[in-house]
Amino acid sequence: MNRPDGRALDVHRPVEMILGFHRNAEGSVLYRAGRTVVLCTASVEPTVPAWMMGKGAGWLTAEYQMHPRSSPARREPRDGRGKAPSGRTQEIQRLIGRALRAAIDLKHLGEQTIAIDCDVLEADGGTRTASITAGFVALALALDRMRAAGSLEAPVLRDQVAAISVGHLPGGLALDLVYTEDSSARVDMNVVATAVGSIVEVQATAEDEAIPRAELDRMTDLALAGVASLASAQHRALSSAGVDLSALFQTDRWRVA
Amino acid sequence: MNRPDGRALDVHRPVEMILGFHRNAEGSVLYRAGRTVVLCTASVEPTVPAWMMGKGAGWLTAEYQMHPRSSPARREPRDGRGKAPSGRTQEIQRLIGRALRAAIDLKHLGEQTIAIDCDVLEADGGTRTASITAGFVALALALDRMRAAGSLEAPVLRDQVAAISVGHLPGGLALDLVYTEDSSARVDMNVVATAVGSIVEVQATAEDEAIPRAELDRMTDLALAGVASLASAQHRALSSAGVDLSALFQTDRWRVA
Amino acid sequence: MNRPDGRALDVHRPVEMILGFHRNAEGSVLYRAGRTVVLCTASVEPTVPAWMMGKGAGWLTAEYQMHPRSSPARREPRDGRGKAPSGRTQEIQRLIGRALRAAIDLKHLGEQTIAIDCDVLEADGGTRTASITAGFVALALALDRMRAAGSLEAPVLRDQVAAISVGHLPGGLALDLVYTEDSSARVDMNVVATAVGSIVEVQATAEDEAIPRAELDRMTDLALAGVASLASAQHRALSSAGVDLSALFQTDRWRVA
Amino acid sequence: MNRPDGRALDVHRPVEMILGFHRNAEGSVLYRAGRTVVLCTASVEPTVPAWMMGKGAGWLTAEYQMHPRSSPARREPRDGRGKAPSGRTQEIQRLIGRALRAAIDLKHLGEQTIAIDCDVLEADGGTRTASITAGFVALALALDRMRAAGSLEAPVLRDQVAAISVGHLPGGLALDLVYTEDSSARVDMNVVATAVGSIVEVQATAEDEAIPRAELDRMTDLALAGVASLASAQHRALSSAGVDLSALFQTDRWRVA
Amino acid sequence: MNRPDGRALDVHRPVEMILGFHRNAEGSVLYRAGRTVVLCTASVEPTVPAWMMGKGAGWLTAEYQMHPRSSPARREPRDGRGKAPSGRTQEIQRLIGRALRAAIDLKHLGEQTIAIDCDVLEADGGTRTASITAGFVALALALDRMRAAGSLEAPVLRDQVAAISVGHLPGGLALDLVYTEDSSARVDMNVVATAVGSIVEVQATAEDEAIPRAELDRMTDLALAGVASLASAQHRALSSAGVDLSALFQTDRWRVA
Amino acid sequence: MNRPDGRALDVHRPVEMILGFHRNAEGSVLYRAGRTVVLCTASVEPTVPAWMMGKGAGWLTAEYQMHPRSSPARREPRDGRGKAPSGRTQEIQRLIGRALRAAIDLKHLGEQTIAIDCDVLEADGGTRTASITAGFVALALALDRMRAAGSLEAPVLRDQVAAISVGHLPGGLALDLVYTEDSSARVDMNVVATAVGSIVEVQATAEDEAIPRAELDRMTDLALAGVASLASAQHRALSSAGVDLSALFQTDRWRVA
Repeated sequence: MNRPDGRALDVHRPVEMILGFHRNAEGSVLYRAGRTVVLCTASVEPTVPAWMMGKGAGWLTAEYQMHPRSSPARREPRDGRGKAPSGRTQEIQRLIGRALRAAIDLKHLGEQTIAIDCDVLEADGGTRTASITAGFVALALALDRMRAAGSLEAPVLRDQVAAISVGHLPGGLALDLVYTEDSSARVDMNVVATAVGSIVEVQATAEDEAIPRAELDRMTDLALAGVASLASAQHRALSSAGVDLSALFQTDRWRVA
Repeated sequence: MNRPDGRALDVHRPVEMILGFHRNAEGSVLYRAGRTVVLCTASVEPTVPAWMMGKGAGWLTAEYQMHPRSSPARREPRDGRGKAPSGRTQEIQRLIGRALRAAIDLKHLGEQTIAIDCDVLEADGGTRTASITAGFVALALALDRMRAAGSLEAPVLRDQVAAISVGHLPGGLALDLVYTEDSSARVDMNVVATAVGSIVEVQATAEDEAIPRAELDRMTDLALAGVASLASAQHRALSSAGVDLSALFQTDRWRVA
Repeated sequence: MNRPDGRALDVHRPVEMILGFHRNAEGSVLYRAGRTVVLCTASVEPTVPAWMMGKGAGWLTAEYQMHPRSSPARREPRDGRGKAPSGRTQEIQRLIGRALRAAIDLKHLGEQTIAIDCDVLEADGGTRTASITAGFVALALALDRMRAAGSLEAPVLRDQVAAISVGHLPGGLALDLVYTEDSSARVDMNVVATAVGSIVEVQATAEDEAIPRAELDRMTDLALAGVASLASAQHRALSSAGVDLSALFQTDRWRVA
Repeated sequence: MNRPDGRALDVHRPVEMILGFHRNAEGSVLYRAGRTVVLCTASVEPTVPAWMMGKGAGWLTAEYQMHPRSSPARREPRDGRGKAPSGRTQEIQRLIGRALRAAIDLKHLGEQTIAIDCDVLEADGGTRTASITAGFVALALALDRMRAAGSLEAPVLRDQVAAISVGHLPGGLALDLVYTEDSSARVDMNVVATAVGSIVEVQATAEDEAIPRAELDRMTDLALAGVASLASAQHRALSSAGVDLSALFQTDRWRVA
Repeated sequence: MNRPDGRALDVHRPVEMILGFHRNAEGSVLYRAGRTVVLCTASVEPTVPAWMMGKGAGWLTAEYQMHPRSSPARREPRDGRGKAPSGRTQEIQRLIGRALRAAIDLKHLGEQTIAIDCDVLEADGGTRTASITAGFVALALALDRMRAAGSLEAPVLRDQVAAISVGHLPGGLALDLVYTEDSSARVDMNVVATAVGSIVEVQATAEDEAIPRAELDRMTDLALAGVASLASAQHRALSSAGVDLSALFQTDRWRVA
Repeated sequence: MNRPDGRALDVHRPVEMILGFHRNAEGSVLYRAGRTVVLCTASVEPTVPAWMMGKGAGWLTAEYQMHPRSSPARREPRDGRGKAPSGRTQEIQRLIGRALRAAIDLKHLGEQTIAIDCDVLEADGGTRTASITAGFVALALALDRMRAAGSLEAPVLRDQVAAISVGHLPGGLALDLVYTEDSSARVDMNVVATAVGSIVEVQATAEDEAIPRAELDRMTDLALAGVASLASAQHRALSSAGVDLSALFQTDRWRVA
């Protein structure tokens, strides 16, 4: 099978990251995977939502927004201009939040909130998984800044997290779908996992007919391989920016993939 | 491990269904699984959403709403009264819609819409999976009515669909969580599958730490066994109401679990 | 004149009540009058609205909602999904609240709120009056539960309240209109009254031409007879459920109709 | 009993009307009854709502709004600025619309809409009844303009309509309540009626305890006397402005009160 | 060039003011300039917005609303009824607020808010400038009332403020445009200034092509002459109502234009 | 006077532009002026708003949004998430739209819309003027693309437009204010003008006391010099990207500043 961008079925798009692209946020990355571009920022706020106050724990939340021209084909109305954020938007930002909360130990963060803003500038499939993978990088940059500033009592990072999609295409199982592949996939799966292959979240949806259990297992295998590769890319990018990821991890939690 | 209602870990709650409870809808069922009660109706509308018009295909959509007193503990504001439907509500009704669309062949439904309304009257965990399992029954009743009325050119049912939850509890993997179990689960999984064990949708979410891949596989096994049992219950209830499920299936698609 | 369901002009539809249908609420009833079905729940909340705090008195509020398929003819959008509750909905729930507040002595309720939720499952005319008549039953059940639990310092029930419609039809004055009658009535009247015939609320509306004063008086007479009959039905249903209505009344207020 | 403004119990406030106060609307009146001031305009629009199109009939609709400083005591937020029109607002404007639709024969209006805008500039009780009484005057002015312009095929006025309140006060039954009386009334009644005493709408609400049937009848008597007096005032004001009310009535419908 | 109402190019419409038209507000004026009519009220509230509390300073805010029939041509929906206040509405009420805040020294007002409500009853161009000119009069009346009541520690008025429009028409520069002139102007300028010609706000917008700098200067000259004339009219109207404007000014700030 | 970034009073911040930064839009630029960063895209849509259809002319519209972390100090809620776009947002995007519509001849654009999206990524004062200056560059890129694609019948560019702020600071008049200067300015002026110094829009607002007319004139002079310098920067950037600005201009309209 020929993929639109010539990749092998089990290879994800090459990833390019510009760390610190947004200069105001405590952590930020401009993340490009092919024609999908996401700007992720991590902002540290000195408070927690009302329902969490007084418990001593921290919080992490995420927002996701498509740029009106993120689609190559046409401009679409911006969320919040004459239309509320769609169910899809809310679903995605809840997913990003859960995925990144799994990466840190909120109990030891103190009463502060890390807000992850994911602005999809260009969209060619995989925007939610790109947001998670990039969101982790922005988060790590912010944690590094907090560590240096002494606003963390102890390391809070528990796991290195990334995400990728797998599709059940007519030509076989394929990693990291672009938009046209996504539209024709019988099943679309998104997997959030750790650098060493533990599962944070699995969402598999048959858009058309149900698939046998064994296919699901093969799709999971492929996704975990992709996550491991993205975790390496995160690691390299952070190292290049002078961030020692191991120093952010809780004792005994740092494991190289 | 002792479960709150004394069940074994691999047993779902007993299910009771009153078919035709709502007399106006083309299909309806009052579905009780322990202290979770859902009223599902299937209404047939002679049109499709604007973006589908002129394609000759049909549509199926779902709405989900909690009764203000669905919680045993306290009354909560109703969706749409001073607050928009929450992200959770939208996420659930999108899931119900996808799950039931997988059951039928929309291309052969003609330009009509089947609307599934799921009113959760009492909630004790598992309301989204109960809505899917009950929603399938309401859908089958409506299809039977349409068949009898001659408003279907050919059978459109492709699969028998049901759903169940599995939790990763401190005491082990457990089927069909009640509310208190759900709150303490490390991982919460919802599986929508067919009577013969094909996968329609999997959603597994680590609320706390990630879990090993092998655990995910065991959870899936347990869920599929639960779905098979619920499919039998659906079949029995429909038969008692005089509905021959096999007659609603497309040729060669009917398979007993 | 022949009525659609064969009743005499001065007879209301037979009423069926399932008390305790909703197991979480402090009081509940599934109320059926012909093809009109309302689920009423009464929930006790341990607080009052902000504008009432610190006065020592209690509050009673009501919400009313049509099920999307309450009409036999077609599904309609649910309140709060893309549309705010309509003026009609707000008008009705304000009426239900006023009617039931007239039944109790809020000053002696203590700072708690009783919330009456009226879900119209099936609608064939008379849904607002059915909500009031059923709402009283749910309220009495909740008061009985509160009395047994010792959360009432003294009885607070002041009057037994029910409601019914009367229409000015081409064939004469008719009690308890069904939908098709309601649509063709020259005047539609709703009367909320006590078991002994005192007036709580009267709403009479000429949909077409004004009517002579004498006609209004005859309509009121007919409505009060209907309310007395419904009050007997409430009494019987509560007795069957083991509720001694007289024990809930303030001293010297209990009077048999 | 002494009333705040020294009136006898059965006397309404003196009424002052400035016809044509708003120069753009087809009909308008600035209506003052004591410290209650309403600006009513009647605008003729050359179309009908979508659900009425093609039936050949006309429509009449009403909007009601309180000026932010209509209360002598304090400024209150304007409807639609951070808050939707309240249930009370919607209830009142629906009432005004029904009351004035009863006055005309919509079937012979042709496919045009008359919109009545009621802006309460100052409020001291009785704003909804003032809006109806003034609204009729604005309507009559607009009909006169339409008649002169030849945009009415035939007269469409069926009845002369006005409205007034009656209260059940500790000191007796009182006509046309001011705000402080309204707040202390056991029962508040609003009656819309024709110049010759036919009933268009009755709304009687016990704010506290129910009242005997006989009291209701006495309140109705008092209200009808008040409406007759207001109808005379409408007649005089229209005559002074050169409008011959009798010429606007359908044949055989004009009757002097 | 002939103007629609026969005025010379450098003359504004004659202005008529009825002070105290709205009896509840602390200050009010019904302001008519030709066919543009605005009712302005100034209400004093004993508090400030949350973000200003505890600073000891006061606030002034403005709201602007078009009456549904303010246009001679047709009725338009009211703000807040099915549509949020438009961008235009918000822009105008922000302008009015800024303009009138420039007139007073908020630091010495104490923690109270003056709310200016501008209801445009009839609109023929220039409604925003009429709202400012009339708003100043309502403000002065309220300040005079506060002074008399002793609720001002010292005078707070800093400048006398009025506003006017100038248009770049095909026939030359024209003062105080009516609606049809406004629509055909190449550039529309609104100037808020003090009685002695200092600039509070200038807004000049080329609706079509840009204009040379020299034209802008000439337009400003014309506007300042108009503002001076309106300031005299304000002064005369306030004097007639018994208000001594000079007594409201801070020491050394009162200057006759 | 020392400015926070060491500039002379009459010098604007150095400007950096990355043309084509957003690859999907027909025109785009990442525009940086000091710590103010705006991403502007120009999207061509093959239709016009409903109220313009059938007239043969085109339209240009603009949207403006602050990134939640555009402030260096703290994260702020995004427009449309629990809050409607603010009055400030609407005012700014209306300004941007007007400014850029002045640059082109809509009558000859054909029935298509150019949508300018301005996303303020980092904000340090001057975001609205940066949006206009950058918006012109994005527009020119889109027009060049349309010209090359043959979707323009004739050149439509009429003027080269840019914008800048001037402030009345304690130390004198200053060009291109940063945030802290803006907050302390007595008067804040924004000028939109053409490369050759014609005025498109002037907005000058005294935040505190009014200023003499002569000061206003000096501020305008300073602004026009700034606009001329920005126009040169636009020209250079477009040339570097291979765009010949003169070819986009209508005959006889191209003039070098």
